[in-house]
Amino acid sequence: MKSQRIHNFNAGPAALPLEVLKEVQENFLNFSGSGMSITEISHRSKWFEEVIHDAVTRTRRLLNLDDRFHVLFIQGGASLQFCLIPMNFLKDNESADYINTGTWSAKAIKEAKILGKAVRVAASSEDENFSYIPDHISFDKNAVYCHITSNNTIKGTQWAQFPDTGTVPLIADMSSDIFSRRFDAAPFGLIYAGAQKNVGPAGVCMVIVRKDMLEKVPGNLPSMLKYSTYAESNSLYNTPPCFAIYVIQLVLKWLEETVGGLEKMETANREKAKLLYDVLDGGEFYRGTSKPGSRSLMNVTFRLPSEELEALFVKEALENDLGGLKGHRSVGGCRASIYNATSMDAVGGLVDFMRAFEKKHG
Amino acid sequence: MKSQRIHNFNAGPAALPLEVLKEVQENFLNFSGSGMSITEISHRSKWFEEVIHDAVTRTRRLLNLDDRFHVLFIQGGASLQFCLIPMNFLKDNESADYINTGTWSAKAIKEAKILGKAVRVAASSEDENFSYIPDHISFDKNAVYCHITSNNTIKGTQWAQFPDTGTVPLIADMSSDIFSRRFDAAPFGLIYAGAQKNVGPAGVCMVIVRKDMLEKVPGNLPSMLKYSTYAESNSLYNTPPCFAIYVIQLVLKWLEETVGGLEKMETANREKAKLLYDVLDGGEFYRGTSKPGSRSLMNVTFRLPSEELEALFVKEALENDLGGLKGHRSVGGCRASIYNATSMDAVGGLVDFMRAFEKKHG
Repeated sequence: MKSQRIHNFNAGPAALPLEVLKEVQENFLNFSGSGMSITEISHRSKWFEEVIHDAVTRTRRLLNLDDRFHVLFIQGGASLQFCLIPMNFLKDNESADYINTGTWSAKAIKEAKILGKAVRVAASSEDENFSYIPDHISFDKNAVYCHITSNNTIKGTQWAQFPDTGTVPLIADMSSDIFSRRFDAAPFGLIYAGAQKNVGPAGVCMVIVRKDMLEKVPGNLPSMLKYSTYAESNSLYNTPPCFAIYVIQLVLKWLEETVGGLEKMETANREKAKLLYDVLDGGEFYRGTSKPGSRSLMNVTFRLPSEELEALFVKEALENDLGGLKGHRSVGGCRASIYNATSMDAVGGLVDFMRAFEKKHG
Repeated sequence: MKSQRIHNFNAGPAALPLEVLKEVQENFLNFSGSGMSITEISHRSKWFEEVIHDAVTRTRRLLNLDDRFHVLFIQGGASLQFCLIPMNFLKDNESADYINTGTWSAKAIKEAKILGKAVRVAASSEDENFSYIPDHISFDKNAVYCHITSNNTIKGTQWAQFPDTGTVPLIADMSSDIFSRRFDAAPFGLIYAGAQKNVGPAGVCMVIVRKDMLEKVPGNLPSMLKYSTYAESNSLYNTPPCFAIYVIQLVLKWLEETVGGLEKMETANREKAKLLYDVLDGGEFYRGTSKPGSRSLMNVTFRLPSEELEALFVKEALENDLGGLKGHRSVGGCRASIYNATSMDAVGGLVDFMRAFEKKHG
């Protein structure tokens, strides 16, 4: 039982900025002078309209999106997007490229195949246990889109630069690194991100879709499975997940007004990651699992000399108020997820603990 | 700007019990000694496992569900269920019955038809503007299921007793009256309820499905669109809407431990509704829009002598801290939604205001 808050290295749901949590808490019984909780107001009220409008506006500003893009909020997580993308964009006589960089890419491929869609795996890093991001990829110029996973939470890899697919629109699962760094949105036909890592609580997926992509949406899809339904209604076709969108709005406000924008956030994220990778590279005790050129700035994955030491590491770290350091159940080992809301202070505390643990057990 | 909380008659998202909101607020920075917010803990942590287990257990107890039923939490609202139901249960050579009692029934029918499914509208109350619940219905004995909307928020009608469909499983959208009264779940193949009226915040739909129904689920559906995926993983196939499920758990705890169970809740709901319908029946100024035998215990819909008076009524009510009384934008008029969390005190305040308003303007 912790009486104080701990440093949170969870992979997702993950740390949120303390000032955001405090603002939610403070206003929880009476939102914006409505006399009601944010969980009790109508999604069609002026109060919620301001929330969703502000969240969209800040997203546009932070990611430099021009008016060719819609910003949508859809329920079901990134996992629902795995099927919505081929259902909306890929006709039976067409083909799409997918790059397989691990568990989440593989799930996106699997769901497209369940639908009987033509999927070409243009590249894969499965040969070396997904420890790197593929390079020198030969893309299909006739593909309807090319799907990538921008950051791989389980394997600790990340695209340092996005691939050049020419005129083929990129589609990216950015669940674990959206708003963590600057990038040019122009080549993307669609970007999606489950909120629960870098931008909010679980229960909503942000979808940024280029308007020309919507022309592909078939008419015989149910309303809730069509991107056009959300685009035409500003994500208010039915009741949206109001609370989750509200927290996203506050996180984006924090990102702009407290952090000072995406460039500053990226600088901080690079510094945090460097602190940890320097420990991994500084000796033999900790061993990073992803290749240096493909390393994730968000999820630092590593092994210790034995599984017993790994279990002890996770246990003793928690005793020192450093939580969530266990690797994903599918791969084992250790993982420090250092999303936007994980402070330099938290990372510094982890580095100190890692050095002390190595001294004791190395 | 209200400095105090108001009485909330919103149709949804709607009032939540104040003691639930206070508990969320109090524990928001450190949930259950985790040192993290409920929005920051892993959905696979022991803390969240306890939350979802308790929510399911209380649902089973409150609704008297035996182990033939799964209790699931699915994102996308009731609107997503409109397409999931025919996708999961209705094969191309089969037919289903639907009863059309207004907007939400009509949407359920529309989505099934988009999928090209064979839908038979077994009865409709469209002939009298959906002001009543159809009776003497001739059901198709070969239907795969019969779909009803148990309570109609917009038209203010409710099934007083569920129809006898013999061996054909009933499927009911109970978004606006689940947990408001006792009923026998045995004839139901599936029950669904968007949480944001009687049981929690927006962002999750409760689905109660009878296990034999899952045998109908086709193998070629994407994972996130199959009920079996949620049933096999205890709603944890991917990250669920943790916060919304947590609030549901607290509301169900309130329902069992503070209210004292469903029978007491039903008694209170009948008393609240009677207070309002007595005002409507006691004179000519207010006019109920639904027929007496079909009246909803949850949404009391009524008209005043003119639209100007209706607008004034809504405005002056809000000045008296009675909010959310405007009728649905598609029908106009006034509506008092009196879900579980709307107290007798709130209804009493509304009745007093209605009498005073009539005296002044009648």
